[in-house]
Amino acid sequence: MKTIFKSLLAITVVSLVLSSCGNGGSKKGSQGALSSSAAEKVYVAPGEHDEFYAFVSGGFSGQLAVYGLPSGRLFKVIPVFSVDAEKAYGFNEETKPMLNTSHGFIPWDDSHHPDISQTNGEIDGRWVFINGNNTPRIAKIDLTTFETTEIIEIPNSAGNHSSSYVTENSEYVVAGTRFSVPFPQQDMPIDEYKGNFKGALSFISIDPEHGHMDIKFQIRMPGFDYDLSHPGRGDSHGWFFFTTYNTEEANSLLEVNASQNDKDFIAAINWKKIEEYVNNGGGKKMPANYAHNVYDEDTHTATSTMKKEVLVVDPSDVPGAIYFMPTPKSPHGCDVDPSGEYIVGSGKLAAELTIHSFSKMLKAIENKDFDGDAYGIPILSYEATLAGAVKQPGLGPLHTEFDGKGNAYTTFFISSEVVKWKLGTWEVIDRKPTYYSVGHLMIPGGNSRKPFGKYVLAMNKITKDRYLPTGPEVTQSAQLYDITGEKMELLLDFPTIGEPHYAAGCPADLLKPKSKKFFKLEDNKHEYAITSEADAKVVRDGNEVHIYMTMIRSHFAPDNIEGVQVGDKVYFHVTNLEQDYDVPHGVSMIGANTSELLIMPGQTETFVWEPKQVGVWPFYCTDFCSALHQEMQGYVRVSAKGSNVPITFTLDGDAVDAE
Amino acid sequence: MKTIFKSLLAITVVSLVLSSCGNGGSKKGSQGALSSSAAEKVYVAPGEHDEFYAFVSGGFSGQLAVYGLPSGRLFKVIPVFSVDAEKAYGFNEETKPMLNTSHGFIPWDDSHHPDISQTNGEIDGRWVFINGNNTPRIAKIDLTTFETTEIIEIPNSAGNHSSSYVTENSEYVVAGTRFSVPFPQQDMPIDEYKGNFKGALSFISIDPEHGHMDIKFQIRMPGFDYDLSHPGRGDSHGWFFFTTYNTEEANSLLEVNASQNDKDFIAAINWKKIEEYVNNGGGKKMPANYAHNVYDEDTHTATSTMKKEVLVVDPSDVPGAIYFMPTPKSPHGCDVDPSGEYIVGSGKLAAELTIHSFSKMLKAIENKDFDGDAYGIPILSYEATLAGAVKQPGLGPLHTEFDGKGNAYTTFFISSEVVKWKLGTWEVIDRKPTYYSVGHLMIPGGNSRKPFGKYVLAMNKITKDRYLPTGPEVTQSAQLYDITGEKMELLLDFPTIGEPHYAAGCPADLLKPKSKKFFKLEDNKHEYAITSEADAKVVRDGNEVHIYMTMIRSHFAPDNIEGVQVGDKVYFHVTNLEQDYDVPHGVSMIGANTSELLIMPGQTETFVWEPKQVGVWPFYCTDFCSALHQEMQGYVRVSAKGSNVPITFTLDGDAVDAE
Repeated sequence: MKTIFKSLLAITVVSLVLSSCGNGGSKKGSQGALSSSAAEKVYVAPGEHDEFYAFVSGGFSGQLAVYGLPSGRLFKVIPVFSVDAEKAYGFNEETKPMLNTSHGFIPWDDSHHPDISQTNGEIDGRWVFINGNNTPRIAKIDLTTFETTEIIEIPNSAGNHSSSYVTENSEYVVAGTRFSVPFPQQDMPIDEYKGNFKGALSFISIDPEHGHMDIKFQIRMPGFDYDLSHPGRGDSHGWFFFTTYNTEEANSLLEVNASQNDKDFIAAINWKKIEEYVNNGGGKKMPANYAHNVYDEDTHTATSTMKKEVLVVDPSDVPGAIYFMPTPKSPHGCDVDPSGEYIVGSGKLAAELTIHSFSKMLKAIENKDFDGDAYGIPILSYEATLAGAVKQPGLGPLHTEFDGKGNAYTTFFISSEVVKWKLGTWEVIDRKPTYYSVGHLMIPGGNSRKPFGKYVLAMNKITKDRYLPTGPEVTQSAQLYDITGEKMELLLDFPTIGEPHYAAGCPADLLKPKSKKFFKLEDNKHEYAITSEADAKVVRDGNEVHIYMTMIRSHFAPDNIEGVQVGDKVYFHVTNLEQDYDVPHGVSMIGANTSELLIMPGQTETFVWEPKQVGVWPFYCTDFCSALHQEMQGYVRVSAKGSNVPITFTLDGDAVDAE
Repeated sequence: MKTIFKSLLAITVVSLVLSSCGNGGSKKGSQGALSSSAAEKVYVAPGEHDEFYAFVSGGFSGQLAVYGLPSGRLFKVIPVFSVDAEKAYGFNEETKPMLNTSHGFIPWDDSHHPDISQTNGEIDGRWVFINGNNTPRIAKIDLTTFETTEIIEIPNSAGNHSSSYVTENSEYVVAGTRFSVPFPQQDMPIDEYKGNFKGALSFISIDPEHGHMDIKFQIRMPGFDYDLSHPGRGDSHGWFFFTTYNTEEANSLLEVNASQNDKDFIAAINWKKIEEYVNNGGGKKMPANYAHNVYDEDTHTATSTMKKEVLVVDPSDVPGAIYFMPTPKSPHGCDVDPSGEYIVGSGKLAAELTIHSFSKMLKAIENKDFDGDAYGIPILSYEATLAGAVKQPGLGPLHTEFDGKGNAYTTFFISSEVVKWKLGTWEVIDRKPTYYSVGHLMIPGGNSRKPFGKYVLAMNKITKDRYLPTGPEVTQSAQLYDITGEKMELLLDFPTIGEPHYAAGCPADLLKPKSKKFFKLEDNKHEYAITSEADAKVVRDGNEVHIYMTMIRSHFAPDNIEGVQVGDKVYFHVTNLEQDYDVPHGVSMIGANTSELLIMPGQTETFVWEPKQVGVWPFYCTDFCSALHQEMQGYVRVSAKGSNVPITFTLDGDAVDAE
């Protein structure tokens, strides 16, 4: 029984983790110099602002959460890949198309790696990109509105994990498959995996003006698992690096069968070379169905287009563009330092941390210092690219970030710690425990030429006794460390939404000045927008009833509506007439099966109500908007199908007959 | 144009609010003695525990959020009335029935007023109840698992706002309509409102052992709006108090038309008297459709039953059980002090805060000190029940809580402040600004005989510049004040999920000892549970395929499945075999339209997948569970409809033919 052996191994691993668990006491407050100092360092007094934004992925929540650092306060959960009844995301007519895919409407995904757009290798705060793993997609969030404005599906991909990192001028955001699959998809016995299943690495171009995404090309790679990736920068700009595991090409019981090889690979991709090949007509157009969904901020409405083909490049088409660097052992993180010279491969089952040198890699390529090939792709000699190794650094290395001052910080899942080490000398400078089982970590700007090395945020998988218990399901967690000194100082534990897989951080001042306060009514190009109460109306069109409604403190126009019948499809098109910051209104109807609308000033949204019962049914404002909020309500009278009650409504307290 | 006048009024109100806005600076950290002290008071050092739980309603999110105080950290969002793709709530087969209603499946509601169960007038920490306003329902959350285990729909109600407060031995949880409607529902012109529309106040009995809810009776009240309520306690136990507004019985443009009367009412209901009447066969059974949904913790599965009738009591049936106490002016909050003697009515348009005396009320009833009646219900003389008034306390009073030391704390929406005043003398002791537009406030245990008067939590509607901006939509917010001294001290601003309408708090030690850590496998009575990998199997039944699957670190059993066809309905019944605290696993299938499963140790959940495309599709663990988490995966081969590929699967790396 192979699995019994493995389970024992897993239990040993867990015991290691648990041995570091303390018992959460119920004391609180400052105790001694350390806590007192930490308290002041993370305290953001009422009315003052945090120094940094942290965009933390929600993992299995499918969303992106916005926190402030150093306080750890959660400001917003941006709906990205999952429906959100609160904001009507995926429920209202305007955003439903955002979650369309080639598999139909998908209400959920597993969001992982946010990355902020860059200019000249520095984060520019225009957009943040994030990948959906499960039904492979890349989303773009606009950082003036903090709303998801574009989602592109990735065909031929499965478990879109080695994504969504951007190149140093945001030329591309990259999406790499985790699982290899038949490419193109087809009915095939699973045990014919080896040699037949392939992995897609997709380069998605970003329009520099509007940020529109388009799959420029996909590389059809050998049937490995592609785990993580990072772009080159500085001298290595033009290259992209991907870790692989399961180079064994196993297809069952991977915990055993994909852990056999002493070394797997980091794939080094010269995307500039492939781009040139493609620009000159290279690559093969292949049929592929994938959705491209765009939310238009003028019409406040999304549209979904189904694309039909994708350009595929096989490595053999572009000799000299792709190399493998052997890296022990099932490497997970693939992190590039701010200079672009060092590529850190975190072999999660390896005894040491492997650092490759970009310049040595170029030299090895020039010298053809190869150690065979894999499916025609040259394998560079391990020693030829090796810059150095951090010896005995910890157990289960996963990810590395950089402070811009020559130091690197690596997380160790099994030994539950963050280890600080020096680039170039590879010596360990400090190590601090995490509580518990840390995955990713983040330094604001850490994935760029210019990190802001004041804090590191560790994102942990297990918390057990760290917080007040909440039944069998307890929160996952982040921990904030001060890294301004030689030694790291743990400042704060704070809980997170879903599971935090990576984060992107930036100084507050980069985003504050351009954050939009409200939408201008005169710019509202929604098909059913009205900009004055006098234009409010109710229009019957067969069994569809369209209500053109406005909301302003503290009433709806119209507020009483008659003439609706059981069996009708009633569209509430509702415009918030307010023109000031932070004056939302909400609206929903009793029994409406499309959730509520939370509508910002100047915006129009639509929900559909299909009344099933005769009666008089109220609607009301769902967001406390003024001292007379409780009075902001209306009624819809629903008569039997075929009734002769005509459409009428009240406007400003007076009855109006419909046109 | 009546609305123009009113809009001007609204603008004036808002100007008042805005004039108190500062400009959030970007500085942080301690500044002077105040901040430094506050920093230490709210800091909960890593690994230590908060002192109090705060259960904060999500408002238009429909959920209930669990925070720690004093840190303001968010530990869990409990899905209650809204679907949650992250936890599969409302998506998996087990919890879909929880959101069933007489209007069909409703994915959203507007949750308002959590209240913890009580024994002898003190919170006992067994359950927390919360109301859904929009499609009227009451939910019960089990405080050993922090999961929603029961939801009951409230018929004849519309905008279930004056809910869900419990009596001092949890005999009843109360649900009061906000809007009056035809009772029973019927097709009726809206302008025939007056005299024809009625308001339902529902008394829901709670089974003392299991907490099961049942509508004991509904009172059919006059067609006012019923805004808030609180139970009597101590001497007033057996009574319940409800604020009303719109005693004008207006049906359009309520911001003007429901603000005419100088006084509305607080309805005093002698529920013990009505209970006795009902126990003796009183009341009228009326047809009514409403859902009663119960989640069974042994089968991990919910069932929904549609109930067919409800017992209705008209006030005229039980003379002497219901009285009106005149209360200026559109009273909102209806709060009872810990002794049960004082009932505070917060006339939101009134110049002063009105406090009624329970003992004076009894005397006035005895003396028949009436001032007419409303629909046959005696109106008590205003002066006869008046205990006193807090003079010129602020603008727009909404809610009051108590510290158990003789002090009351009232929120003022328009003047944005919390005012501390003394019970009995009615003198104002202190006032502190809120940022901005405070609604509810909460002192742990504040709605009981035994408040824990250390902190007050103010819940605010508007934040504008208080936090880093996040586009047009900014967070709503809570503020924590230290109330141990004569003067209140503002300690902390922290953002909230959705809109915080009330909260219930309790000392951490009340819940910590009984919080469940995991579900025992041997107690798992789920219809499709298996407790050993050897029992894993795949069974075809027509076009349904049932996969009996297990998950344990770090593999699924089975992991490769063949023989599925396009057009099949594939049920993944997945059991987490782990038997330790905080070892969840997740699972989802590419293109699955039912979101993911997050499964706790010992639990079984089910999702359905309807594959639309031929191919080989992976599934994987969505919750990072071990160093070999990335290896925890499997494939399903999907063949064309009618294919002759038989059902086979791999178990522990070996192929198995299906039975």
